[in-house]
Amino acid sequence: MKAAVLHGIRDVRIEDRPVPEPGPGQALVKVTAVGVCGSDVHYYIDGRIGDQVVAKPQTIGHEVAGRVEALGPDTETDLSPGELVAIEPGVSCGKCEHCQEGKPNTCPNVVFYGTPPVDGAYQEYLVHPVEYLYACPEGVSDEAAAMTEPLGIGLHAEHIARIGPGDSVAILGSGTIGLCTMMAVRAAGAARILVTDLLENRLDLARRLGATDTFVAEAGGAAGATEWIKEATGGRGVDVAFECAGQIETMRQALDVARIGGRAVLVGITTEDDVPLQIHIARRKELEILNVRRSRFTIPRSLALIEQGRIDVESLITHRFGLDELAKALDLVHEKADGVVKAMITV
Amino acid sequence: MKAAVLHGIRDVRIEDRPVPEPGPGQALVKVTAVGVCGSDVHYYIDGRIGDQVVAKPQTIGHEVAGRVEALGPDTETDLSPGELVAIEPGVSCGKCEHCQEGKPNTCPNVVFYGTPPVDGAYQEYLVHPVEYLYACPEGVSDEAAAMTEPLGIGLHAEHIARIGPGDSVAILGSGTIGLCTMMAVRAAGAARILVTDLLENRLDLARRLGATDTFVAEAGGAAGATEWIKEATGGRGVDVAFECAGQIETMRQALDVARIGGRAVLVGITTEDDVPLQIHIARRKELEILNVRRSRFTIPRSLALIEQGRIDVESLITHRFGLDELAKALDLVHEKADGVVKAMITV
Amino acid sequence: MKAAVLHGIRDVRIEDRPVPEPGPGQALVKVTAVGVCGSDVHYYIDGRIGDQVVAKPQTIGHEVAGRVEALGPDTETDLSPGELVAIEPGVSCGKCEHCQEGKPNTCPNVVFYGTPPVDGAYQEYLVHPVEYLYACPEGVSDEAAAMTEPLGIGLHAEHIARIGPGDSVAILGSGTIGLCTMMAVRAAGAARILVTDLLENRLDLARRLGATDTFVAEAGGAAGATEWIKEATGGRGVDVAFECAGQIETMRQALDVARIGGRAVLVGITTEDDVPLQIHIARRKELEILNVRRSRFTIPRSLALIEQGRIDVESLITHRFGLDELAKALDLVHEKADGVVKAMITV
Amino acid sequence: MKAAVLHGIRDVRIEDRPVPEPGPGQALVKVTAVGVCGSDVHYYIDGRIGDQVVAKPQTIGHEVAGRVEALGPDTETDLSPGELVAIEPGVSCGKCEHCQEGKPNTCPNVVFYGTPPVDGAYQEYLVHPVEYLYACPEGVSDEAAAMTEPLGIGLHAEHIARIGPGDSVAILGSGTIGLCTMMAVRAAGAARILVTDLLENRLDLARRLGATDTFVAEAGGAAGATEWIKEATGGRGVDVAFECAGQIETMRQALDVARIGGRAVLVGITTEDDVPLQIHIARRKELEILNVRRSRFTIPRSLALIEQGRIDVESLITHRFGLDELAKALDLVHEKADGVVKAMITV
Repeated sequence: MKAAVLHGIRDVRIEDRPVPEPGPGQALVKVTAVGVCGSDVHYYIDGRIGDQVVAKPQTIGHEVAGRVEALGPDTETDLSPGELVAIEPGVSCGKCEHCQEGKPNTCPNVVFYGTPPVDGAYQEYLVHPVEYLYACPEGVSDEAAAMTEPLGIGLHAEHIARIGPGDSVAILGSGTIGLCTMMAVRAAGAARILVTDLLENRLDLARRLGATDTFVAEAGGAAGATEWIKEATGGRGVDVAFECAGQIETMRQALDVARIGGRAVLVGITTEDDVPLQIHIARRKELEILNVRRSRFTIPRSLALIEQGRIDVESLITHRFGLDELAKALDLVHEKADGVVKAMITV
Repeated sequence: MKAAVLHGIRDVRIEDRPVPEPGPGQALVKVTAVGVCGSDVHYYIDGRIGDQVVAKPQTIGHEVAGRVEALGPDTETDLSPGELVAIEPGVSCGKCEHCQEGKPNTCPNVVFYGTPPVDGAYQEYLVHPVEYLYACPEGVSDEAAAMTEPLGIGLHAEHIARIGPGDSVAILGSGTIGLCTMMAVRAAGAARILVTDLLENRLDLARRLGATDTFVAEAGGAAGATEWIKEATGGRGVDVAFECAGQIETMRQALDVARIGGRAVLVGITTEDDVPLQIHIARRKELEILNVRRSRFTIPRSLALIEQGRIDVESLITHRFGLDELAKALDLVHEKADGVVKAMITV
Repeated sequence: MKAAVLHGIRDVRIEDRPVPEPGPGQALVKVTAVGVCGSDVHYYIDGRIGDQVVAKPQTIGHEVAGRVEALGPDTETDLSPGELVAIEPGVSCGKCEHCQEGKPNTCPNVVFYGTPPVDGAYQEYLVHPVEYLYACPEGVSDEAAAMTEPLGIGLHAEHIARIGPGDSVAILGSGTIGLCTMMAVRAAGAARILVTDLLENRLDLARRLGATDTFVAEAGGAAGATEWIKEATGGRGVDVAFECAGQIETMRQALDVARIGGRAVLVGITTEDDVPLQIHIARRKELEILNVRRSRFTIPRSLALIEQGRIDVESLITHRFGLDELAKALDLVHEKADGVVKAMITV
Repeated sequence: MKAAVLHGIRDVRIEDRPVPEPGPGQALVKVTAVGVCGSDVHYYIDGRIGDQVVAKPQTIGHEVAGRVEALGPDTETDLSPGELVAIEPGVSCGKCEHCQEGKPNTCPNVVFYGTPPVDGAYQEYLVHPVEYLYACPEGVSDEAAAMTEPLGIGLHAEHIARIGPGDSVAILGSGTIGLCTMMAVRAAGAARILVTDLLENRLDLARRLGATDTFVAEAGGAAGATEWIKEATGGRGVDVAFECAGQIETMRQALDVARIGGRAVLVGITTEDDVPLQIHIARRKELEILNVRRSRFTIPRSLALIEQGRIDVESLITHRFGLDELAKALDLVHEKADGVVKAMITV
């Protein structure tokens, strides 16, 4: 099979690899769609994310859907060959206290697609345990199925935030994760949805997908956006502020714009060692500062919402590439060029 | 002013009464819209609800909106004359532990419009404390403002049930309260929404407002509807079953159709002394059986959702009457005639 | 090995059976202590609990502790031979949505010791998966380890009830489960603890273990006890009422004595098809009626509390028997004779 | 009456002031015990806490109990003259959304004893609304009643943290607030309780009051204590880490020692503008970082726990002074001299 192997910084090579064999309890899946994620770009541009280093050639990619090709021996499942499946990319241990208590997303033993040294999804075939494959209902496309992964982050952020109908929210940063969070909290009933970003085209998309108000923030200074949110809410602030940019400025802003008794939810991923936070402000407002680690059990919810037409996740896809063009796709996303939001690899 | 006074069973008389004077902290409100509620019908037909008896002539009605006419002396408020207000009909004591802990809907000292011996809203003017009046944003009509009261029951039921995006629900009974609950849980992200009722026209409306599946139940036997829900969910049942009919049959059904680990939410009001419930089933499924008492703090949420076009509460209004025609409206609602869902008194 | 096999109603025979062989991931455990549970008595006296029927000879018993004797092949564990272990008697599937979401106690595929047709713990040796064995810290006795099972029910009931320090509670029924619930909620900070039972000796024990007030109820009539609880709480009722007798009377009582906005937690197991409940009262008080299904993840908590001397679970043991004397022990518990609370089989 | 008036930095003068007159709904209270709080020391030593500045002479002090002396006109209450009352020192507005939703501790309009420019409790008499006075049951002393204020912070921190029986916790800092938090979480069932502080005598007291393990930390470096906690928990960390020192080092430590999926609760008050936090660690562990603002509705809980002998709050009182000696008491607490934990002013 063909695989797009990352050999080092900005060095992706299309290679032939043997098709893997499904073992007991596993399925062989023909990959049909893989979304390009910001973390893929980190491995491509920097060769690492924190202490996770691409030390030997491997494939990356984890926002993936495909078609069941074959089942391993002794595999009990309702899945049948040809069926479209959304794929949970993290296989957790099932034994640790976190797995047992229903939080596999924090399992310290998780094996996650495309996180060194584990191979990822930019290849024609994968093997995966059948419990981590979710059959898609009629009307869900391969690309939508792949998009359940980033949408899942948004849904998990919503779950952590416990949004209720009529809540007001701020979404600080409207890249893929910000927009997925926005769609999730809108589906949960958020009424007033204030979105900020540096890029006007992303805010245009945010408005099309349900933002009620948007603001073009200035790079390097959150003060303008903070003031805008406070004014828009009559000085009260929002019930929940979602930080979706992974920047120190917006993390601080989340604490500023959350109302008294509100929540600041940190969805974005920072690579900074330390984030200076105004804890004295958080204390006076008795804020909850809530962290989000990937997602759990969100694929069935994503599929139900997509099937019912409640969330249009395909609207985020702005570009499509073949597997051969992975490097080009990664460059595009890295440069945030050509109005890209989500680039999809169609295998 | 004109008032439609209930003198006894099926005995409503239009009378002249003096316009009340607002005291300190109060406003005088010119009533513009009042919805006819099932509890109004109880007082009209039976002269009582349980131990609450209409013992002397009084007005009833509590789903009410109006226009600020004047303010009492020493009244601090942002409201201005002519402004449309949605009205919280229950004035709680503010001193008891329930009020202090943020649950005024369970205040044992509450004074509630139209609950004997307190006068209600079927009269041209009301006085009410200004904290219980909510200014309506642009685009919210007088009738929609009056509808925030029943919608509030639905939103409170959703709050009690803690719906998340993608949840599946059953709505057992699709009168006004069932439909309001349905709209609230849909706004909260419920994906699969199964609705049952005896009346086909109500199910038609349910489908227009977001039900994904509906079923015409047979009077006196819930077995068919129960089986339908189980089949529709592959035997699993729904995450949350909302009982909205106030019948023993549907309360039992709620316990049957809720999934393992799910919730049965009792929204409907029963007048039965005892409801025989299959607790052994509830125990095996570790169900939560949750009761709903009116609503709390739902008007701002209702207004935000209506303003954003997220809930179309006016669709429930099927009939309109003048204050003089109150008896006719009560008869209509009592008989469930002419496809009535919500009858509105326009003053 | 020796096993006390239930052949039919009141027919226990001591037989020789082969010592079982531990498979991969399993340990062989030498049983040292087994508590006699009310459900054991049901199988012994009635031959069944509801639709679970003892159709062929089997051992019963599930409140069990023992010593690790040997490990199966390919078994990864920190356990070592001779170590005392508390045993989780229900082996859940790990695959269903309930297991995955951290609620294995509601797994519909659970295999539970001593529930027909699964053999139980009244035998000299058991094999069990190592993840379901919990090494006991210093100072925890074999009998205390066996008592973690009923204590776990109490801790799970407390978890469901969400007790906070200073809460007031009623415990309706002070058999083993009532007392375990009482100890659990006392450990969680319940300040005022009102306990009722028919038997004075159980109330004496309740007071020794932390009840602040007790009342001898009359068989067949809960009115006296209900009035006592209302008086003792100045008419307010308790924050949480725990039904621990499995009787219709006490289930109704739980709804009566819970305060406005409180919780009624049904811990006792009823064999009635229907329980007539006063839902109109529950609705006015906006009660939560919460069901309890066995327990989950309570053994580590039990062991920590026992180790720290926070709960003295051995105080409940009033009688001890050898494995040969199982029938005698079951008779005693059935008759509630000789002041028995918990009878322990020492193997 | 005599009042100990703060005129400026380290300038307390005993003066004669007129006894205040209780208005409608108020009581006149003869002060009998006032605890010296760290915030009192801030006003005494620095003349301010952040932007709250002592600009004109005033009394301070807010941990106060006393005896009802007289009632204002038109005052409905069950209190009778001579009765001992614990006093809630913050009078909230009752109108804002935070008050209405049951969180008066975050009311932006609160009037709080001894917070400039509001007078405090270091004077012989006070007037206060009767709803903020709590009659003490038999067996609660005047000093214990005054101690309900700091104990309330601990109980509120526990409420925010949602401790369950068997949880493990770390208490970082064992001054009055750390010890009160420790007693509260112990009452809530925390089993393993690890406490750190710079001062050995405070850890001695912590052990007497329920700490299971203690560690003398080094000033200026939390690494040793962090390592100790990790070792003591087998590398897992604690379920909840309570920061009770108000220091950057210990706030960071709270994030380090909380387990995966755990909580870091910030109880201590920092005066730093920014606290650099390791958010990347918090994200991987999906921590909740929870802030605590004073307390709400804790006095009845405190009184119930003290009455039942569940918390011995008087053990924290190490020194007693007359009102004339307030300056001496403030100096002592400031210097942490003579093993002082809580100094009490007996009026």
